[in-house]
Amino acid sequence: MKTVVILGAGNVAFHLTRAFIENTIQVKQIYNRTLEKAKKVAEENNIAYTDKISEIEKADLYIVTSSDSSIEEISYHIPFENALVVHTSGSMPIQSLKGKYRKGVLYPLQTFTKDRKLNYNEIPFFIETENEDDSKKLEELISKVSEHVYKTDSQQRLFLQMSAVWVCNFVNYMYSVGDDICKKNNLPFDILKPLIKETADKIEELSPEKAQTGPAKRNDKIVIEKHLNVLQDDKLKLIYDLISKKINSKYN
Amino acid sequence: MKTVVILGAGNVAFHLTRAFIENTIQVKQIYNRTLEKAKKVAEENNIAYTDKISEIEKADLYIVTSSDSSIEEISYHIPFENALVVHTSGSMPIQSLKGKYRKGVLYPLQTFTKDRKLNYNEIPFFIETENEDDSKKLEELISKVSEHVYKTDSQQRLFLQMSAVWVCNFVNYMYSVGDDICKKNNLPFDILKPLIKETADKIEELSPEKAQTGPAKRNDKIVIEKHLNVLQDDKLKLIYDLISKKINSKYN
Repeated sequence: MKTVVILGAGNVAFHLTRAFIENTIQVKQIYNRTLEKAKKVAEENNIAYTDKISEIEKADLYIVTSSDSSIEEISYHIPFENALVVHTSGSMPIQSLKGKYRKGVLYPLQTFTKDRKLNYNEIPFFIETENEDDSKKLEELISKVSEHVYKTDSQQRLFLQMSAVWVCNFVNYMYSVGDDICKKNNLPFDILKPLIKETADKIEELSPEKAQTGPAKRNDKIVIEKHLNVLQDDKLKLIYDLISKKINSKYN
Repeated sequence: MKTVVILGAGNVAFHLTRAFIENTIQVKQIYNRTLEKAKKVAEENNIAYTDKISEIEKADLYIVTSSDSSIEEISYHIPFENALVVHTSGSMPIQSLKGKYRKGVLYPLQTFTKDRKLNYNEIPFFIETENEDDSKKLEELISKVSEHVYKTDSQQRLFLQMSAVWVCNFVNYMYSVGDDICKKNNLPFDILKPLIKETADKIEELSPEKAQTGPAKRNDKIVIEKHLNVLQDDKLKLIYDLISKKINSKYN
């Protein structure tokens, strides 16, 4: 597989395009129904772009990076029977691709923000294809980008995506609660950054089970009670209480 | 202030001792009611140690690092009226120190694990004292260890400690949920590490509000439903649902 067309122009498309170009994989074209967005991803890398699905060019691999609900609709319009078409969704099965072509999935496990520089070589990619031959070809191609290419089925992929929600999306929400608490008490959020960094760094060496600290682990009911008393938002109170009880029941 | 005695021999005592020694602050003695524990902290640094509170030596500063519930009892036995005695608790007021001496608090905001190397210079220390003169002295001393020394009152300290529960203890619990999901699905936890790292690294540049990604932010009810369906633990389901709703209500 030598040529790639990317469909969609969100954060995943942006970073995949950049990762491919950096590793001399030829991205022929970016398609997006909003031309401006396609242009934005394409231009920085001197790639052709279009907002007309009928004008997508012939390539070896099509990567549908659009949202889950658009995969079916977009994939339906890819007319190249000799191509491999993959989507990048964690939770959609391979069958959500509708069209006459070979099908697969290429799921990168990372949080993509447009203007962040990422070390693509470290990102794990999870692939699934209908046939073994495509699996080899896709693995070979993606290995140019990352050392970490794994085969997974749809079920494992869903669990991976859910893990990512816990360790990334929910973790970031915990940061934002910390941010809000700081703001309300005239403390700069920067104060929490060394702690945030060390909490993440610890995990490189220690299992989360061994890295756990804090009042819930120590079964320190008095401190927990003090925190619950000063939390004004009832939903946050409930979340604090539930997580504390889960931690407590794990260690005490 | 030139000489320090540390009371308690847990993780805070271990790291404070090391931070002081590294920065040529003289730690004269470690006290702990279990001799073995005092010995462990003291020995690596060639410091005297004791398990008899009546044998603690004269020093300029006493740091009570013991658990919240022991502060009162231990501090009661410090007989040196000319000394400054501080505790290291986030949630206890200055008045929890019982004895005839000058009183204060020295609260380091970090997650301490015994065998981790820490860059003490980056750790924020929050100080509170009964009088301004002690505040200056304590600040001067701790500035040898860290560039980040702040004055706070008991109320702010409690909020800081609660922030730390969210951005450290609860974050680590999120990691452990990810770990459990991986284990149950024959996936190595290592797969999540680049994502964990990037999620924390992002925060150096972006506010948590801007860094948020994921199904709850996108208001992707179908993915959320899929995750809730495969989560078997009812409490985790509830936590997932509550956090998702909080994120959703923030962005949609």
